[in-house]
Amino acid sequence: MKITAPYLLFLGDATDKLSIKMAQGVADWRPDLCVGQLRLVGCEVSAGLQDMGIEEARDKGANTFVLGFANCGGTIDTSWVPYIIKALNAGLHIVSGLHDKLTDIADIKRVADEKNLQLIDIRHPQQKFTTGNGVKRTGKRLLTVGTDCSVGKMYTSLCLEKAMLQRGLDVDFRATGQCGILIAGHGVAIDCVVADFIAGASESLSPDNHDDHWDIIEGQGSLSHPAFAGVSLGLLHGSQPDTLVICHALGRESMRGLSKCLPPSISDTLTLNLNAAKLTNPAAKVIGIAVNTSSVSEDEAIRVCEKIAKEFHQPCVDPLRHGVDNIIECLL
Amino acid sequence: MKITAPYLLFLGDATDKLSIKMAQGVADWRPDLCVGQLRLVGCEVSAGLQDMGIEEARDKGANTFVLGFANCGGTIDTSWVPYIIKALNAGLHIVSGLHDKLTDIADIKRVADEKNLQLIDIRHPQQKFTTGNGVKRTGKRLLTVGTDCSVGKMYTSLCLEKAMLQRGLDVDFRATGQCGILIAGHGVAIDCVVADFIAGASESLSPDNHDDHWDIIEGQGSLSHPAFAGVSLGLLHGSQPDTLVICHALGRESMRGLSKCLPPSISDTLTLNLNAAKLTNPAAKVIGIAVNTSSVSEDEAIRVCEKIAKEFHQPCVDPLRHGVDNIIECLL
Repeated sequence: MKITAPYLLFLGDATDKLSIKMAQGVADWRPDLCVGQLRLVGCEVSAGLQDMGIEEARDKGANTFVLGFANCGGTIDTSWVPYIIKALNAGLHIVSGLHDKLTDIADIKRVADEKNLQLIDIRHPQQKFTTGNGVKRTGKRLLTVGTDCSVGKMYTSLCLEKAMLQRGLDVDFRATGQCGILIAGHGVAIDCVVADFIAGASESLSPDNHDDHWDIIEGQGSLSHPAFAGVSLGLLHGSQPDTLVICHALGRESMRGLSKCLPPSISDTLTLNLNAAKLTNPAAKVIGIAVNTSSVSEDEAIRVCEKIAKEFHQPCVDPLRHGVDNIIECLL
Repeated sequence: MKITAPYLLFLGDATDKLSIKMAQGVADWRPDLCVGQLRLVGCEVSAGLQDMGIEEARDKGANTFVLGFANCGGTIDTSWVPYIIKALNAGLHIVSGLHDKLTDIADIKRVADEKNLQLIDIRHPQQKFTTGNGVKRTGKRLLTVGTDCSVGKMYTSLCLEKAMLQRGLDVDFRATGQCGILIAGHGVAIDCVVADFIAGASESLSPDNHDDHWDIIEGQGSLSHPAFAGVSLGLLHGSQPDTLVICHALGRESMRGLSKCLPPSISDTLTLNLNAAKLTNPAAKVIGIAVNTSSVSEDEAIRVCEKIAKEFHQPCVDPLRHGVDNIIECLL
């Protein structure tokens, strides 16, 4: 799945900051890939980019029109279709992370075909994958794994990539979710592939590379999440990581979306992931813990991270507050 | 996915016994659902049923024409299309477990639509699933889990169902693979669902039931298989089994399809599955070990099973040679 930057981010009539997480992620991490944002009347949130229309964005170099929001049910509202068609007529490819498929809307499909433009439904991968083979690949790999969903695996991965690039290391961020794919411009939405191919698709994501190359692979879900552990395990096996970073969010009282399911401890998460990782990489090890401390003060964040570091004999940081230098020292 | 029996099993021009595994499974376990088999010139194998043409089968009550074979690549050969269309014209639904979709072949689709008959592509489930919720359901569940793929999980499950029915117990076999679905007449091809929904689809397979009802759930893959462990884990979590039966095949030197990957021990398989099962059912326990001993003599089979039973303090049998009474005693 490859997406051609730069993007015009369409925010529609979104009123909730969480619903534009996809647009916000790419605006935060790849502002250079974003020409601007298009907001309709009624839109009450912003990704912090310049507002502009479709023609202006095209004139400023935009190649792709991105539906940068999610809604309940993942439907494409008919009121957005004219904007999508206008973007196609302006020569832009279209990307959507919604459940409804762009290619299922006849008017959109027809114009895209006429103009020979791409309709990319990130949630419906078109690639043909093979089943996994477990064969060890060359190059080095790091995978972020979590105590739960939405604990900062993508942000931690991107912080690591950025810091490693600053040190002149040869590194690629490998995206496995919708927002990550927009940021990287390519990747595999791993929870959208057919179950038989989870590990095979994960293997294809970080192919053979030279010995001092690092792939930083965005983790998904959690081995302790009753809904998504299968995805996490297939991704772990297919990634065959040399190193794992455990991601955790402070103050989470239950597993995401499951109010009666308690989150696992960092210790259990570490053991579970390390044992499972050894199936495809017996040398796998944990090299750090990343904690989302946004629910506590700066001082408390430092206290908590020091305590965890001491308990696990591992570097422990909040990547956004403290950077990831401690983890990278351990990696090298 | 529901299939209307009885079936006419189409063996095409198959020359290899392994390639008609799907037809053979249903002929072995549900001969009462099979009216007969249709073989083309060149077909060198048999499921042991009466040979007959499409009209004869229809006159004898057949409702569904089953492509009962698999080939490399899972393609639908154009030479079979006339038989499929003839079956539709005779009023039969069509079932295929191939990768190519019946619904993608225009002539087949047109006739099926005209006649209002079903085209069921088992590998491409059309159901809408939700993500898992991990909530404990009522009723009792047993899941077969394996040291590897193709070690006898379906046969063990069916032996257990049969023996429990003979004892007058209230039991359902829950199918998770193509052959199992034909045998049960319904089920979910769990390795064919989108990764996000593995656990949710597994939850839907054994819904709430009354307290003394047993679901015997057909396992898939193995937690130790680098290609398919994600499927196995999602199925395990969604099934929330009260009891597990470990399935193993003697004489396997490497994991199926992966010549360099060593199979796990029964002990490791037991620990891995039991620990993972506790996430959605803390009371889960192992109640027996089923060994496919077809590679050794009768005497050796008994010796091996006795040794394993002693080592694990569990009943251990080859279900096809020794029956599963020992395991059912332990279950009750």
